[in-house]
Amino acid sequence: MSALKKISAASITSPKGFIAWGMNAGIKKNKLDTCLIVSKKAAVAAATFTRNTAKAWPVLLSQKHISSAQHRAIFATSGNANCYNGEQGRQAVEECVTFLAQNLKIKKEQILVAQTGIIGREFPAGKVKAAIPALVENMGVEGGQKAAQGILTTDTCTKEIAYSFKLGESEVRMAAIAKGSGMMNPNMATMLCFITTDAAIAKSMLKKALKEAVYETFNEVSIDTDTSTNDTVFILANGAAGNTPIKKEGESYQLFLEALKEICRNVAKELVRDGEGVKRLCDIHVTGARSRKDAQKIAQRIAHSMLFKTMLAGGDPNWGRVVAAVGATEIPFDPKKLDISFEGIKILNHGKVMLSKRPLLRQKMQHKEIYLEVNLNLGSHEAKYLTCDLTTAYVRINAWLTS
Amino acid sequence: MSALKKISAASITSPKGFIAWGMNAGIKKNKLDTCLIVSKKAAVAAATFTRNTAKAWPVLLSQKHISSAQHRAIFATSGNANCYNGEQGRQAVEECVTFLAQNLKIKKEQILVAQTGIIGREFPAGKVKAAIPALVENMGVEGGQKAAQGILTTDTCTKEIAYSFKLGESEVRMAAIAKGSGMMNPNMATMLCFITTDAAIAKSMLKKALKEAVYETFNEVSIDTDTSTNDTVFILANGAAGNTPIKKEGESYQLFLEALKEICRNVAKELVRDGEGVKRLCDIHVTGARSRKDAQKIAQRIAHSMLFKTMLAGGDPNWGRVVAAVGATEIPFDPKKLDISFEGIKILNHGKVMLSKRPLLRQKMQHKEIYLEVNLNLGSHEAKYLTCDLTTAYVRINAWLTS
Repeated sequence: MSALKKISAASITSPKGFIAWGMNAGIKKNKLDTCLIVSKKAAVAAATFTRNTAKAWPVLLSQKHISSAQHRAIFATSGNANCYNGEQGRQAVEECVTFLAQNLKIKKEQILVAQTGIIGREFPAGKVKAAIPALVENMGVEGGQKAAQGILTTDTCTKEIAYSFKLGESEVRMAAIAKGSGMMNPNMATMLCFITTDAAIAKSMLKKALKEAVYETFNEVSIDTDTSTNDTVFILANGAAGNTPIKKEGESYQLFLEALKEICRNVAKELVRDGEGVKRLCDIHVTGARSRKDAQKIAQRIAHSMLFKTMLAGGDPNWGRVVAAVGATEIPFDPKKLDISFEGIKILNHGKVMLSKRPLLRQKMQHKEIYLEVNLNLGSHEAKYLTCDLTTAYVRINAWLTS
Repeated sequence: MSALKKISAASITSPKGFIAWGMNAGIKKNKLDTCLIVSKKAAVAAATFTRNTAKAWPVLLSQKHISSAQHRAIFATSGNANCYNGEQGRQAVEECVTFLAQNLKIKKEQILVAQTGIIGREFPAGKVKAAIPALVENMGVEGGQKAAQGILTTDTCTKEIAYSFKLGESEVRMAAIAKGSGMMNPNMATMLCFITTDAAIAKSMLKKALKEAVYETFNEVSIDTDTSTNDTVFILANGAAGNTPIKKEGESYQLFLEALKEICRNVAKELVRDGEGVKRLCDIHVTGARSRKDAQKIAQRIAHSMLFKTMLAGGDPNWGRVVAAVGATEIPFDPKKLDISFEGIKILNHGKVMLSKRPLLRQKMQHKEIYLEVNLNLGSHEAKYLTCDLTTAYVRINAWLTS
């Protein structure tokens, strides 16, 4: 993607016309726990939500609000998932959003909301409402980093990324902030990603692009095999770049889509890299499958295999576990055609083990990021999946063991 | 099952007319690595095999042999999975079985064979053939324990179990040996279970009973989410008990089936208990589901959840992770109807968190075996699943970390 330029000092306010802020409202003791992103002019929005049937209150509310024609703000809090806490939780998020709308002088339906943190606890609406006036007052172009901090849970760092690219004569910007694999009792890894862009694009096309980008990126990432009750991706596009609005498929739409995929792909990788106890990533690439569905199923099975993930932790090129994961999908394959390579080095060549490669391979497996290719040599379809190792640190964090 | 009596000093030769032996053939350095079980008279057999599409050579051969009308022997080796090692492996298992048939003076098609151990290595047929005469010569009623030892890989103990029960006036015996969750580079957890009985039963009914028993027991057990290339269950029934042969469904068939389920259930539990790094088991019971399929899907999802399994390791009654796993199946449920209890103590009662129960619950979660009930209160269907905790020891064993 030579047409994409990374913006240094990236911030969710890198695109024109966006302001933001984050602060502590008292949900958490000391850390920032609120995030507000506002477009100065009306924007169009799209969203994807968790498919978990236990959905948090903010997800249910945003699912209603997303149908509005125009949006102005994304509001998020961290420390309390506002999930599985009864009717109180529903009222709490309604109250906060209504009060924020009054302070921003916009309609509440123009606000998208996300929350992350502990499940099953009363949501402190009072504290959040008390913080809202200051949150609104302090918003600015410089507030991006505070907003990025406001959504973190057990993440060890903020995730901020921004690109610029050309749409016709216009310079367009796109930025994202995200939080990932923090798990707190009784909670799990919620993924939140908020994207802003100053591109002019029709809501229908924005929706289409986000769906496709998420499908190819976040849905092909595995830290563990669990799905959160609060997972949310929002995108706001405010048209401040002044490009000819994207109203249908074509060159501009493709450029926009590629930028969005690149943003999502990088955010996904950052989230996995900062996953709990993660020491090593693995880019799984399944090729030569009879269908795209077969390729995806196999890539996902490898990505989720505890034996494969522990193998990554140990840095051992154990191709037997890869074969076993491929077979565990119950998709027929030909052992005599199978190729497996780690970091470009074939350990299995048309089903034959290349034992002489083992010493070199052991060295390569120490890399922080491993590329695995599994070629079934049965067809022309492929799929990718990003996974990480399963370490003793992951177990310790999630079992609350102190040793 | 008051009608079932546990046999003390259980052995695979507890049923009448069976003899066995196990010895070291040199596949492994010091430990026993062969297992031979023979019925003195012709028996009928049934089997279930791994559904992994990467099947080991012994599985492929036994899938052919199982169609024989009568069988006489089960032959197993450990230390080498004879899987994914090319044409040599196919020839090796054929050779060994042919030579064993000559020594036993039976047809090779009357032998069922299973192998477990490392994937992708040349199979030492010569060593195994050299051991066969001694193996045959030493067979006896006292050889059961040696046979049980001969199939172990990284198991820490043998699994031997036997029951007796009445079929009409006849005393019938049923016994099993098994091996489980040992994983060695580049291999994975193979499950082998061999069952003998002196009941008289038609081959068709034996097949039906085994299928049903396996479905309800071994298929509802999870150590990790991987499926081995070598998993095998064999049963031989030789009729030596002299009962009226079971030729159709009815009281005798039901008694036989219940005994078989009890054997399988106990073997399954023993296998999980001896799983790598396992410190704690959990019996998951999903009730009140709209369909049996829903209940099974939910129970399995909980059983496979890495977050749930680490939670078990930590001994923390984290119901939030249970709710999240239920929802992750994408099966609709009503949060306001959900009950969750650990060890009979409700932490979630129709969606309400019973916080006062938490201290007592934390104590109960220290038990070695935890009973979890998840009641959806939506219907009358249920399912069970047995799982274990995910410990730092599991990761260490499988990642080959020394610290």
